[in-house]
Amino acid sequence: MTSIAVVNAGSSSIKFAVFGAASTPKLRLRGLIEGIGATPRASLSDAKGETLLREEPPPEGFDHAAATQAMMRMAAPWLDGGDIVAVGHRVVHGGPEFSAPLRLTPVIVDRLMTFIPLAPLHQPHNLAVIRAMFAAYPDLPQIACFDTAFHRSQPQIAQAFAIPRKYSEEGVRRYGFHGISYQYVVRRLKEAAPDLAMGRVIVGHLGNGASLCAVSAGRSVASTMGFTAVDGLMMGTRCGALDPGVLIYMMDQYRMGARDLEDLIYRQSGLLGVSGLSSDMRSLRAAGAPEAKEAIALFVYRILREIGSLAAALGGLDTLVFTGGIGENDQETRAAVAAGCAWLGVSLDDEANRRHALRISTEGSAVAVLVIPTDEEVEIARSAWEFGRDAAGRY
Amino acid sequence: MTSIAVVNAGSSSIKFAVFGAASTPKLRLRGLIEGIGATPRASLSDAKGETLLREEPPPEGFDHAAATQAMMRMAAPWLDGGDIVAVGHRVVHGGPEFSAPLRLTPVIVDRLMTFIPLAPLHQPHNLAVIRAMFAAYPDLPQIACFDTAFHRSQPQIAQAFAIPRKYSEEGVRRYGFHGISYQYVVRRLKEAAPDLAMGRVIVGHLGNGASLCAVSAGRSVASTMGFTAVDGLMMGTRCGALDPGVLIYMMDQYRMGARDLEDLIYRQSGLLGVSGLSSDMRSLRAAGAPEAKEAIALFVYRILREIGSLAAALGGLDTLVFTGGIGENDQETRAAVAAGCAWLGVSLDDEANRRHALRISTEGSAVAVLVIPTDEEVEIARSAWEFGRDAAGRY
Repeated sequence: MTSIAVVNAGSSSIKFAVFGAASTPKLRLRGLIEGIGATPRASLSDAKGETLLREEPPPEGFDHAAATQAMMRMAAPWLDGGDIVAVGHRVVHGGPEFSAPLRLTPVIVDRLMTFIPLAPLHQPHNLAVIRAMFAAYPDLPQIACFDTAFHRSQPQIAQAFAIPRKYSEEGVRRYGFHGISYQYVVRRLKEAAPDLAMGRVIVGHLGNGASLCAVSAGRSVASTMGFTAVDGLMMGTRCGALDPGVLIYMMDQYRMGARDLEDLIYRQSGLLGVSGLSSDMRSLRAAGAPEAKEAIALFVYRILREIGSLAAALGGLDTLVFTGGIGENDQETRAAVAAGCAWLGVSLDDEANRRHALRISTEGSAVAVLVIPTDEEVEIARSAWEFGRDAAGRY
Repeated sequence: MTSIAVVNAGSSSIKFAVFGAASTPKLRLRGLIEGIGATPRASLSDAKGETLLREEPPPEGFDHAAATQAMMRMAAPWLDGGDIVAVGHRVVHGGPEFSAPLRLTPVIVDRLMTFIPLAPLHQPHNLAVIRAMFAAYPDLPQIACFDTAFHRSQPQIAQAFAIPRKYSEEGVRRYGFHGISYQYVVRRLKEAAPDLAMGRVIVGHLGNGASLCAVSAGRSVASTMGFTAVDGLMMGTRCGALDPGVLIYMMDQYRMGARDLEDLIYRQSGLLGVSGLSSDMRSLRAAGAPEAKEAIALFVYRILREIGSLAAALGGLDTLVFTGGIGENDQETRAAVAAGCAWLGVSLDDEANRRHALRISTEGSAVAVLVIPTDEEVEIARSAWEFGRDAAGRY
């Protein structure tokens, strides 16, 4: 059986997964290469999470290109003789133009290079692996899935900041992220409740990164994340929406530069910064300290305010969907959000919520509330499979 | 008849007004001193706007102190023999603690000095005039009215940013502004429709500066302006809410420093930045160019999104009030906002809207919509009068 590889490359790590090539891709292998550029460690496990192998490659020259080849080599013996026929890449930024997955060419990769200033922490590493694969496996189809693409259906007005036109025109606008997750959740909603999927939906992707997306008839019309993945909701270590004047204050009072500010708003804020304890919701629930409660309360409050804002973009609300690590597993967050949305017509079925049911609203609730576990890797694998199928009829 | 002076001091100008000392203060004089530190010009007019005098004081040594004395000297001959018995000052920042007008003492002024880093563009000038008055008229009661005070009733959670605790504790939080205007409008709403004033109200102060305030039973529970007066709604030249990552991008791509960023977000953005034409709503309406229409559409869209967010803070909406230059005069903005709030139960009476009636919603509208012209000077005069009356029974 042929396979699809899914690759998610970071600055010092590559996560990958191998799926059977099918419209409903089934996981076959999962791998991780960490410590690229330092002390590399590689591991591979099967679909059940059983470790198949561990390696500690020699650090010399072990860059993203070497890691890419190590990944393919590690996977090969476990493919039962079938080939990897396509690779789906998670690419953080598709810029203003790319609104769907696409098959990569060197020309497109050059175009994606121009978006590096828009996502300097992620885009270069995504592209490094793609370039390495082009070099090592020139005939292997590579498909890019963008975190921004799902949101390109938004009206221009939802994507605009009120800044001078020249900056908007050069690309300083709201892109929105978590788009692969939203695409997956909307697909699942269409399967589970096609009538709801055609209405006004807010999806909450609540994890270590967190955002909300307003979806009307299956298309994104607004999102809380903006130009970067730091805007909108409070997150594990990110501040979410912040008065831009605060940054100027930090520059004046503390002589902070760009990297200091980046560290402040990306890594020192959010649940961690407010609690002073942890960025992890489970740890905060367990801690029970007043600072932990305060951080959780602010996390919920910010969700409630942004749900109101997105309901305005939708002109009302029919369905609320929770996904992501917190959205799928933390019934207390869901209960608090649902309680704060009573004014919109949300009524929670406590028992269904406790058992993380698909539908957790009461029969009479004016707004349906669902829990749909996300799976970005499956979505990428599916896109890669579908793209190849559409383009060539078969791989 | 005794009088109350109202003073609003900026970096190079002092606006002042004189009212009869009464619970419903009546305007007697209005004055302006501009060009302090450059080429000073002073003028005084009566309540009808007729010019009483113009002066061009010699520039040498004409600082805020000299301007303060010039102001009092200019007004004196027109007071019909009655004294100025108290001065009400507009002070932009009351910090985390001051939640009402108060009579100034040198000790309080020292405390207000510590808020200068929170409002470096305004607070020093407000205080310069207060110090000058203490020196020249030591026995004259001076009352401070703060733009932030009305919002101190907000729950802590509405005032918090999701940043490290130490910064929140040192005062980096949402203060909200336009509080003197909101105080006035809420007072007028209580007089005009006491039942509505007890409910869930959003007041839109839409002028060159613009913000919204969520008011529950007469008390502020949330506001769109944050740590500074640049956050929240799009304004004449201010951007409103902006992904903090945009500032880091500007630092990296354009080597912008704090003053460049300040110029960008305070003076080059908003209606001016998006239209490329004007910061003035009337000019944009007249222009009719696509860029002007785009700027106005974004202005309205941002209001609609923030109304949703504030409705969430209130748990629903009973009343929407328009005030400020645009809110009071631009029926098209009001109509567009009302149309976008249909999902909340707003139904506009077009004819009442055209004639800027007090109540512009239909009889059947689930949300009452009102137009209440604001008057911050009267509110300051009234506070100064009331404070003195409360403290001493009489001046």
